[in-house]
Amino acid sequence: MKKYNVGIIGYGWVAGAHIAAINATSNAQVTAVYSSRELDAAKVSAQHGSSITVYNDLKKMLANPDIHVVSVCSYPYDHSKQVIAAAKAGKHLIIEKPLALNLKDLRAMQEAVKLAKVKTCVCFECRWSSQFLSIKATIDRGLLGKVHYGEVDYYHGIGPWYGQFRWNTKKNAGGSSLLSAGCHALDALLLCMDGEVDTVTSYATVSKNKVFAEYEYPTTSVTILKFKDGRIGKCASVIDCLQPYYFHTHLVGSEGSLLDNKFHSTTLGGLNKNKWSELSMKMLDSGDVSDHPYQTQFQAFFDALEQGKEMPLTSLTEAAKSHEVIFAADRSANEGKPVKL
Amino acid sequence: MKKYNVGIIGYGWVAGAHIAAINATSNAQVTAVYSSRELDAAKVSAQHGSSITVYNDLKKMLANPDIHVVSVCSYPYDHSKQVIAAAKAGKHLIIEKPLALNLKDLRAMQEAVKLAKVKTCVCFECRWSSQFLSIKATIDRGLLGKVHYGEVDYYHGIGPWYGQFRWNTKKNAGGSSLLSAGCHALDALLLCMDGEVDTVTSYATVSKNKVFAEYEYPTTSVTILKFKDGRIGKCASVIDCLQPYYFHTHLVGSEGSLLDNKFHSTTLGGLNKNKWSELSMKMLDSGDVSDHPYQTQFQAFFDALEQGKEMPLTSLTEAAKSHEVIFAADRSANEGKPVKL
Amino acid sequence: MKKYNVGIIGYGWVAGAHIAAINATSNAQVTAVYSSRELDAAKVSAQHGSSITVYNDLKKMLANPDIHVVSVCSYPYDHSKQVIAAAKAGKHLIIEKPLALNLKDLRAMQEAVKLAKVKTCVCFECRWSSQFLSIKATIDRGLLGKVHYGEVDYYHGIGPWYGQFRWNTKKNAGGSSLLSAGCHALDALLLCMDGEVDTVTSYATVSKNKVFAEYEYPTTSVTILKFKDGRIGKCASVIDCLQPYYFHTHLVGSEGSLLDNKFHSTTLGGLNKNKWSELSMKMLDSGDVSDHPYQTQFQAFFDALEQGKEMPLTSLTEAAKSHEVIFAADRSANEGKPVKL
Amino acid sequence: MKKYNVGIIGYGWVAGAHIAAINATSNAQVTAVYSSRELDAAKVSAQHGSSITVYNDLKKMLANPDIHVVSVCSYPYDHSKQVIAAAKAGKHLIIEKPLALNLKDLRAMQEAVKLAKVKTCVCFECRWSSQFLSIKATIDRGLLGKVHYGEVDYYHGIGPWYGQFRWNTKKNAGGSSLLSAGCHALDALLLCMDGEVDTVTSYATVSKNKVFAEYEYPTTSVTILKFKDGRIGKCASVIDCLQPYYFHTHLVGSEGSLLDNKFHSTTLGGLNKNKWSELSMKMLDSGDVSDHPYQTQFQAFFDALEQGKEMPLTSLTEAAKSHEVIFAADRSANEGKPVKL
Amino acid sequence: MKKYNVGIIGYGWVAGAHIAAINATSNAQVTAVYSSRELDAAKVSAQHGSSITVYNDLKKMLANPDIHVVSVCSYPYDHSKQVIAAAKAGKHLIIEKPLALNLKDLRAMQEAVKLAKVKTCVCFECRWSSQFLSIKATIDRGLLGKVHYGEVDYYHGIGPWYGQFRWNTKKNAGGSSLLSAGCHALDALLLCMDGEVDTVTSYATVSKNKVFAEYEYPTTSVTILKFKDGRIGKCASVIDCLQPYYFHTHLVGSEGSLLDNKFHSTTLGGLNKNKWSELSMKMLDSGDVSDHPYQTQFQAFFDALEQGKEMPLTSLTEAAKSHEVIFAADRSANEGKPVKL
Amino acid sequence: MKKYNVGIIGYGWVAGAHIAAINATSNAQVTAVYSSRELDAAKVSAQHGSSITVYNDLKKMLANPDIHVVSVCSYPYDHSKQVIAAAKAGKHLIIEKPLALNLKDLRAMQEAVKLAKVKTCVCFECRWSSQFLSIKATIDRGLLGKVHYGEVDYYHGIGPWYGQFRWNTKKNAGGSSLLSAGCHALDALLLCMDGEVDTVTSYATVSKNKVFAEYEYPTTSVTILKFKDGRIGKCASVIDCLQPYYFHTHLVGSEGSLLDNKFHSTTLGGLNKNKWSELSMKMLDSGDVSDHPYQTQFQAFFDALEQGKEMPLTSLTEAAKSHEVIFAADRSANEGKPVKL
Repeated sequence: MKKYNVGIIGYGWVAGAHIAAINATSNAQVTAVYSSRELDAAKVSAQHGSSITVYNDLKKMLANPDIHVVSVCSYPYDHSKQVIAAAKAGKHLIIEKPLALNLKDLRAMQEAVKLAKVKTCVCFECRWSSQFLSIKATIDRGLLGKVHYGEVDYYHGIGPWYGQFRWNTKKNAGGSSLLSAGCHALDALLLCMDGEVDTVTSYATVSKNKVFAEYEYPTTSVTILKFKDGRIGKCASVIDCLQPYYFHTHLVGSEGSLLDNKFHSTTLGGLNKNKWSELSMKMLDSGDVSDHPYQTQFQAFFDALEQGKEMPLTSLTEAAKSHEVIFAADRSANEGKPVKL
Repeated sequence: MKKYNVGIIGYGWVAGAHIAAINATSNAQVTAVYSSRELDAAKVSAQHGSSITVYNDLKKMLANPDIHVVSVCSYPYDHSKQVIAAAKAGKHLIIEKPLALNLKDLRAMQEAVKLAKVKTCVCFECRWSSQFLSIKATIDRGLLGKVHYGEVDYYHGIGPWYGQFRWNTKKNAGGSSLLSAGCHALDALLLCMDGEVDTVTSYATVSKNKVFAEYEYPTTSVTILKFKDGRIGKCASVIDCLQPYYFHTHLVGSEGSLLDNKFHSTTLGGLNKNKWSELSMKMLDSGDVSDHPYQTQFQAFFDALEQGKEMPLTSLTEAAKSHEVIFAADRSANEGKPVKL
Repeated sequence: MKKYNVGIIGYGWVAGAHIAAINATSNAQVTAVYSSRELDAAKVSAQHGSSITVYNDLKKMLANPDIHVVSVCSYPYDHSKQVIAAAKAGKHLIIEKPLALNLKDLRAMQEAVKLAKVKTCVCFECRWSSQFLSIKATIDRGLLGKVHYGEVDYYHGIGPWYGQFRWNTKKNAGGSSLLSAGCHALDALLLCMDGEVDTVTSYATVSKNKVFAEYEYPTTSVTILKFKDGRIGKCASVIDCLQPYYFHTHLVGSEGSLLDNKFHSTTLGGLNKNKWSELSMKMLDSGDVSDHPYQTQFQAFFDALEQGKEMPLTSLTEAAKSHEVIFAADRSANEGKPVKL
Repeated sequence: MKKYNVGIIGYGWVAGAHIAAINATSNAQVTAVYSSRELDAAKVSAQHGSSITVYNDLKKMLANPDIHVVSVCSYPYDHSKQVIAAAKAGKHLIIEKPLALNLKDLRAMQEAVKLAKVKTCVCFECRWSSQFLSIKATIDRGLLGKVHYGEVDYYHGIGPWYGQFRWNTKKNAGGSSLLSAGCHALDALLLCMDGEVDTVTSYATVSKNKVFAEYEYPTTSVTILKFKDGRIGKCASVIDCLQPYYFHTHLVGSEGSLLDNKFHSTTLGGLNKNKWSELSMKMLDSGDVSDHPYQTQFQAFFDALEQGKEMPLTSLTEAAKSHEVIFAADRSANEGKPVKL
Repeated sequence: MKKYNVGIIGYGWVAGAHIAAINATSNAQVTAVYSSRELDAAKVSAQHGSSITVYNDLKKMLANPDIHVVSVCSYPYDHSKQVIAAAKAGKHLIIEKPLALNLKDLRAMQEAVKLAKVKTCVCFECRWSSQFLSIKATIDRGLLGKVHYGEVDYYHGIGPWYGQFRWNTKKNAGGSSLLSAGCHALDALLLCMDGEVDTVTSYATVSKNKVFAEYEYPTTSVTILKFKDGRIGKCASVIDCLQPYYFHTHLVGSEGSLLDNKFHSTTLGGLNKNKWSELSMKMLDSGDVSDHPYQTQFQAFFDALEQGKEMPLTSLTEAAKSHEVIFAADRSANEGKPVKL
Repeated sequence: MKKYNVGIIGYGWVAGAHIAAINATSNAQVTAVYSSRELDAAKVSAQHGSSITVYNDLKKMLANPDIHVVSVCSYPYDHSKQVIAAAKAGKHLIIEKPLALNLKDLRAMQEAVKLAKVKTCVCFECRWSSQFLSIKATIDRGLLGKVHYGEVDYYHGIGPWYGQFRWNTKKNAGGSSLLSAGCHALDALLLCMDGEVDTVTSYATVSKNKVFAEYEYPTTSVTILKFKDGRIGKCASVIDCLQPYYFHTHLVGSEGSLLDNKFHSTTLGGLNKNKWSELSMKMLDSGDVSDHPYQTQFQAFFDALEQGKEMPLTSLTEAAKSHEVIFAADRSANEGKPVKL
């Protein structure tokens, strides 16, 4: 047996992905699943190739001392109370995004985690993708100088052909274009810009195509950000487009720029300024199956657990900051004015 | 002799481009040049391969009845009074962008032109480029459906290596990043979105690279626009980047999207939604020398003149709208709040 | 249970493809298979994952009132009598190409179908491929204007390495290069040109490579077509080549051309005439497995059945026209003179 | 002075190309020009950078014993009588294509040349292009085996934007689509297939676009050829298309195929049959200016002259064969039946 | 049952590959496996889908008269004595590379094989890859003329992520960079150059990266070769690089060159000398899974067995020559001076 | 007038290139030319667009105090005595490669320059190319770690079609393949490896193609180098190939590799190790005319002169080291044994 036993909360599509990724780490395995539906333990075990206990009562699962970590894969509106209960039970936490649908719930979760002194891993797994590990390293090695303008955008048409559509269209489940999907882009932008946001302004709109009519909230938004040190950024979240999935990144710095997998840098001698150089990364929007950010992220989380440390890049503290900006952006779009953080 | 004689006001780099393009049309030629410097008529004529009279006094040139059109190629801060004088003298007008550095001057120009009933052509020549003629036709044939979100951006590092840098860095000559260079992108965005702007919000910042330190105004800005019908748009203007020149266009519509020279459309049967189709356009940022938007634009202007009509796409009326949005954006960046048009 | 039960006639390679595609539709499933060989019902059911009754006597299968549709997957020389029997039994029909090996058989089939008032679906499934759905939409949206010259060709070396080779080489089974394989190209040409054929002329020849010596008919033919309205077309069918599989399409119209997945159109503004634009289609010759024309076609057939209508694009009426042209072309090649339809 | 003096007949665009190419050879120069227009000898000499005598009377030029070769660059309807006169005067001959507009004129020319025992070079210069020298060598080295089916086609929209359009549209000047332009493709097909043509059938039509309405003959034709040894070929000539210029070549042989600049050959070990190999040739349709077939051809002609031999590939004998096929094809299109050669 | 029964010696990763490839031939199957570990016959049989007898005593397996061939897949230091034993037992031999770790062992093996008159197949399977079959055919058809300089190199970072690393790092198992891995490149070089080597000089070094510190021998070497007829070659073997796997080939001949999958040849008419032509081969370093040199090689071996002949390209005689050069190169690197063969 | 006057020694092709590049710098111009042929000062001045004095007596030119720098563009065998004379005359020196044809001459030049305390610039201008400035910066920023194996090679067929061929084929002018042409590659290798060479071994051979028969020395050589710190390198110099010009570079380091314009680096986060990243450099072998290493180099030389310093990268000291290695390599090839430096 590996060191950490994990219990899953919620048993939908994302839970399946978590179980596979957790079992693929070197130091953890899934041993329990809680679902509000009645599950067949034998079937669940067979499907994932290991022995899994099934719970229909969350309290019971949390009361089991052999479970060290829980992974919260339920609907967003259930996250807050489940996270708090798990923290109180002393479980370390993996939490799917979005953390919560409003700032109040988020603060309550942070409070509970702080009190319980448990460790956390939030599923902003794009930070652990080949693409953003490379982009971050490129920035950190100084190839772009100081980045003063950045764009990271999310273009992905989420219509009836996409599983998530069923519940994601509801205001009280999806929340907003940015919260339900574009959050990955905004979180990646904050990773790349690395600083405190001062103010955001956001505008939102909808496609005229009937296929997206079921959405209870605007499906396209564009947000601009001003950082406290004067630098600026922008994030578009478009889930009502009809086009190839596109995770657009453009960073402009004092020594060069990066556009998706291309870059120019004045720090590398005589590079041709009129033609981009190219980094061979596994792109988030390329469908390259050989990059598994979930697994990389969970491995990092369990490794940090072993060392008794907060994990880098995607702890609750980091992720909460991104959520605050998202909440502010959505408020700006609703109220039609800039919002200060 | 061709039908229209043109006098040029100002004799810098842009004047040379105007003269060549005007002389290449089928119905006009340059016969006069006014400059505040003393010019040698023989030299000027030789350089452009035709007989050109040289004026050191603008009034005299405007008083010449053989001149039917003037082309204003002077510094932006001189445009207003020169345009007004030329209009009063009954000359039709070609005017370089930006039209003016503030709304008051712009209104005065519009008034004078209206009174004099002269025709106008403003140098937003990108509307006449192969790229935007194709993009416009693509929208007009319905391949994208109704566009509800659009981005057109301008990325072009304008440093000491670029002629314009000498005067463009001054607040009272360049005006702003958007006004001095990004205006082409914003104007193209308005062409593609085709509607009335309601509100804009803009944030601005600067590069940390010393090479751009001479600029008296922020060299990077990002502006978001809300149209009266609820659709939204965005325009970044970045003249302090170090990268290949990039005129970025991304339009999201109800039946497809267009990204630079790529597109997807649900109206063309079974196109692969996971891979862009591609239009072979001569891109503004490709340095393709076989596309001459100046000449195409001037030809359209002189053809409209022959028919006694306002030219399409780039008359003063159209161009003034783009300037109003730019002025509003720059005000928003300065004042830190949204500006309503 | 879904609405329509289908019985398969003949149990070779193509039957397997039909069963998978039929079972993948939303409203039909295969419940019976007839074969002249003795089959093991349990094995057949297991292989296709559903309960299938096995018949060794066609009459018995046709007598079963629970079977609504039969799919004819037998050798071409058996099609005619089986189709007639099935029609008489009131079964709707899916028929593999070629429909028949001569005009007389074809007419008898048409007669029987007409009398029985059953609906039909002929396996010219290329019309339902991503490639030709896109090409047809491109024509229908007017991007090419009126097409006055068209080529669609079939280059595919069918030697001993290819399953079909075993029986396809026989005159009384394969029929001709055009009938056994190139028919898809000729049918697609007629789809694109959309008109009545007046005359055809065809020349035929053979490769000198011994690997193709077993063929009892010429393995390469080229056919030219004149339409009643004066437009012309051409179709090469080459099954004795040694090269990558190539489904060549070139359409020349009054507003542009289409070459495979490339096109030029004067209707899209300033497109560069010297470089092709490109449609990202899943090409028939690319081996792209994510395009399943069989399934798309059968779905359309069953949907039409539900509405009591003839299916579009590939009903017997349409397909018979393509066969008439093929028979005429083969006669022309044999007799050495043009053949009028 | 180099060895051969050349007199040019006719002084249009093609004459200019001949003069440059002849002067660039190592053993000939242009010393005389005949034109029905009055020319200024000084101007002509200056333009071509050498001393050229100007004639307004063809007889006088032909009477000059210092002229060894004449190059016939006049309108096609003048070729026959001028070639006969020049042959009678003992001049060797360069003759632009088409040689003549009918078989009678062609035979008369052949007769005269034979009698006069002069040497000839006909401007089917594509045979001397990098592309067809490479294709021929590829065939000759056996990489394709025996070619049993070949296509060479000519797609080039010749409208008002093209110089030749002015006179080419006339029946008595252009002749036919094949004769005026597509002849290069048909001649190249004969080069590649290398055999005696037995019969041809041709169909012809026209574009619906008004821009081509001035043509007095069908602007699109497709011709199929049967060779005496049973092999077959096809040539489309399309001068009313709107697309990139395309000189399409597809050769199918017993050991491989060649498609434009791509090929597959079973003679080169384990080449991947599913992907074309690629020959880097300067393509006729690529606009690659570093390939000069005129000069290569004329050099070969003068080199053959020095050795007292007929030139290879493009002597009158070879070229006459191609013309016979063209005349037969045009007759087939007119009469609506196959024509035997 | 197919004709030849094969017994495998050693049961590691490479044995699995041999078993699959042998079973895929048309005339042989694996019926026995010897391992120093105790194996479970049922498990082994199940894994490979056929009945396999398991031996823990090599003598017993060699004594079985139903085994016709043995395949030696053990550690390199065991090859010699096992090969000799098997030869004495009258078994034909498949032998993994390297044959031996020193010249003495190699000579002993050759002696034993010669005496026993058994046939041999050495796993220099790259000679049977699509890539080198094509390169060899290209040379043999004269497209390169006479090759006077050749390079074939092996760049493949073999670190802890690679299975072989576990034992390959030991001096007495891996031997040297060239012997353990680069031997494929050197063997391919000898295939292409085709001649007797006179002298070699080799230099060797190591990476500074700690990940390779476990190696007991220099991990990078470069060897130059002089052939008896004066021609020269070079082979780098680099197993401590961090880069894409690269099997670099550059051959320079009197009529052209070949670089990886690119070539230029003066024998193919007017090919563009400034741009490489390209052969579409399945490259050894491309990870193209549709090329199986093991299977091709073993098929050739068993076919030769049926005909009572030595197999072409990779018999012991050929392979021994390559080993002699490798031993000489390693000696040169150790002793710091040229070594004569 | 700019600050430095330059006199040119020798007036062939390379002198023309020097004059243009020197005149394009910001602080120098060519004012004198010495040639052993009688030159026409007016013609020379006209050709280069400035006033140039012509000398037929070298002493006189060197005696002119207004000349500050001389550029030695004569035949290699004249370099030594001319450089010594110029140094004695107190002139700073630009010297074309090769510096000398033997070590004795080289030492004499070094001595004279040292005594005269003049500054030097040797035409190893590849060090100043976009390509090697970028490669050097890539190494210097640590992207490759420590380079332990490097190859830089020169493949360029120098036959009768190439100007230099006329004299380069002579032993006493060209010297060797490495000295006359490959020296650029060897010099670039030393730049990249940056260390002291301990020993070299070189093998040499010739093409069988008659076109290269005139060469008095072996036209292909391959040299391997061992550095004092144990690292190794290799340089092939091939001037008898028939292929595209290729300046091949492959550097293997402890953190990555560089291959021509491609690289992989472990220092940039999650880059895909199986696919090269790409630097957009202007390659020496691409014929990209927008990179002018001569001018960049001369500018750096004159800038260093202004500051009273030795120029970086290509002073006589640096260049002499490269020559010593070349002389040693050529000696090794001649004597058939390693040569220690």
